[in-house]
Amino acid sequence: MGKVFVIAQGGGPTAVINQTVAGAAIAIRRRHPGARVLGARHGVRGIRNDHFIDLSAIPEADLRRIGLTPNAALGSTRDKPDEQYCARILDQLRAVAADAFIYIGGNDTAGTLQVLSAADDGRIAFVHAPKTIDNDLVENDHTPGFMSAALFVAHAFQSIDLDFRALPGIYVGIVMGRHAGFLTAASAAWRRAEADGPHLVYVPERPFSVEKFLADVRAIRQKFNRCIVAMSEGVATADGRPLAEQLMGEVQRDAHGNVQLSTGDLGQAMQMELAREFPGVRARVDTFGYLPRAFSGTISEVDRREAFDVGVHAVAAAADGSGSVTLLHGADGTTCGVVTLGAVAGKTRLMPEDFMTPAENRLSPAGVAYLSRLLPPPPDVFAPFL
Amino acid sequence: MGKVFVIAQGGGPTAVINQTVAGAAIAIRRRHPGARVLGARHGVRGIRNDHFIDLSAIPEADLRRIGLTPNAALGSTRDKPDEQYCARILDQLRAVAADAFIYIGGNDTAGTLQVLSAADDGRIAFVHAPKTIDNDLVENDHTPGFMSAALFVAHAFQSIDLDFRALPGIYVGIVMGRHAGFLTAASAAWRRAEADGPHLVYVPERPFSVEKFLADVRAIRQKFNRCIVAMSEGVATADGRPLAEQLMGEVQRDAHGNVQLSTGDLGQAMQMELAREFPGVRARVDTFGYLPRAFSGTISEVDRREAFDVGVHAVAAAADGSGSVTLLHGADGTTCGVVTLGAVAGKTRLMPEDFMTPAENRLSPAGVAYLSRLLPPPPDVFAPFL
Repeated sequence: MGKVFVIAQGGGPTAVINQTVAGAAIAIRRRHPGARVLGARHGVRGIRNDHFIDLSAIPEADLRRIGLTPNAALGSTRDKPDEQYCARILDQLRAVAADAFIYIGGNDTAGTLQVLSAADDGRIAFVHAPKTIDNDLVENDHTPGFMSAALFVAHAFQSIDLDFRALPGIYVGIVMGRHAGFLTAASAAWRRAEADGPHLVYVPERPFSVEKFLADVRAIRQKFNRCIVAMSEGVATADGRPLAEQLMGEVQRDAHGNVQLSTGDLGQAMQMELAREFPGVRARVDTFGYLPRAFSGTISEVDRREAFDVGVHAVAAAADGSGSVTLLHGADGTTCGVVTLGAVAGKTRLMPEDFMTPAENRLSPAGVAYLSRLLPPPPDVFAPFL
Repeated sequence: MGKVFVIAQGGGPTAVINQTVAGAAIAIRRRHPGARVLGARHGVRGIRNDHFIDLSAIPEADLRRIGLTPNAALGSTRDKPDEQYCARILDQLRAVAADAFIYIGGNDTAGTLQVLSAADDGRIAFVHAPKTIDNDLVENDHTPGFMSAALFVAHAFQSIDLDFRALPGIYVGIVMGRHAGFLTAASAAWRRAEADGPHLVYVPERPFSVEKFLADVRAIRQKFNRCIVAMSEGVATADGRPLAEQLMGEVQRDAHGNVQLSTGDLGQAMQMELAREFPGVRARVDTFGYLPRAFSGTISEVDRREAFDVGVHAVAAAADGSGSVTLLHGADGTTCGVVTLGAVAGKTRLMPEDFMTPAENRLSPAGVAYLSRLLPPPPDVFAPFL
């Protein structure tokens, strides 16, 4: 009897997560002719609910088209399975006679696989294929999905900096990232000259203070007659508390409990701070929200290729049992590796300390070098009068 | 003595406004060898302050690179000159012996030129070159800058719709546009099937009611298990009052005057309404803000070419005196025309009534046809399981 593979996608979407499905499904055809490939609808939920799609029946050309499509084509889930849920998943995987379960996702996904692997008798290979726009998986140089989201952020700040050269003022762009600042730092990947924005970059890894922020903005404005800021949604004060929560608390007190602001209001709070501190100055805060994470207009070709390769490598890894596929960088460029699930599960990779300059809120040459290695060169812009 | 041309850029930036500068400057070289071309820094403010750049000295290759750069390379301004300011501009134009003043901008810009033209003795040609992401200039089929901004919006909603197919919920994207809904409507340009998002489009041209909006969302959600909404920042109730202002008022009352929310909080208000009406449902509101208007990652090639042609045509038009260059659509595709400044100045073109279906908040076939004519075909996406 042929082998049986189950593939699923978990967590937030990326622009290239379907490349990993395509890569895995196509690699299975090559390595294991006649194997069955079951795609679980909406992650582990599809396994629990016996909701599968037979990917073995899909023509390869269609799999490649699915690969080019952003966002999770099998559907995704935010479910974090508890013990009972995991037992049910195992039962279902056994019911379909699965030899391997390839689950594409972040460190939570690796955690789920670790639990499943520990509960199993070793007959099923549980393989984690990395995916996250946050770029926060340990053991990886970078993760599939990050480059494309980073490309969006780099384009946005390149454009916004030119906007504010033409019409001076203050701009704050708030970028996804609760714990790791990589995606926010990508705002500075194409920065070349001292005057180029973003001039200030605030990431969750560095303690944030509103007073320092306002003083920083004031200093940059004096120098360049404008100030462009990239800020992670997860910036936190020295005690580790996310600023978004604290500011929300203040606003709620002001409002005598009547105003209920969502977590999206970090931008609102920054807008109020800037209006107070710089009255009459053009100041704009944009929260990028979901826009960068799977935007169909800025998908990195390298990201696409690597996400596909990660799928291919997950199939190869399954022959050796459970593990987590990694992306490594070395003399030969980017290559795939495999580590144990435990090496990745539940761990968060933060941005290296030396990616930022020690005293200022800006990217160091090391940070710029890392990010520009991952991105294509910037579009040629030429604004000699600004 | 050679002719003297003054060129300036006004108002908000676009992705292609510099193409019009390049087109005009290059056309002047061809038509009027030896002419002087003065670029005014920051629009009419540069004329008032005698702050010019000699564009005659810039190599053509550099002008073309400037053309490829998004945002106003000469700098822009929000100044709306009063009578005294206009008198000063006229004096300055005469002081540099200007034969023509080409001002690139929207209907306010045309209005400034109309005032100047009326105050002049007819020796200077005042030529308006159109530019606006709002697409709201009368006498034009469409305006330079719109296509590129529309391309961003179309990509964003294509991606977001796939996102919410994978992880169901409610999404509202708020798009620039105070009076005209064209840019918001561009969200549906690539919509093909009944199930494709955005499912609801709210533009300033149609009266908005929060109750109707929530009922619409409920109905769509029941049908498709998700609901994608495109909303103009300028949506207004039947009495013509912008919703953003009204909601802000309510929040301020709740807060006993302590909470000062900016105009950016339409999104915040919508987020609160959705949380109240659909508790526990994934609901996300993103305000696109400045991102679409000059994003360097989604510049339309056709938009670039047309913006360049508008600059070329402005130079030709200057030979016949004052006027406003227009973009027309006919059997020969897009061509340039010229109308009087008065035909365009201060007027706002709204989206034609028949671009929306009569009863529902969605684009009609006529609306989709118009918008898809202006955009390139969508990236091929294939998500057969969602």
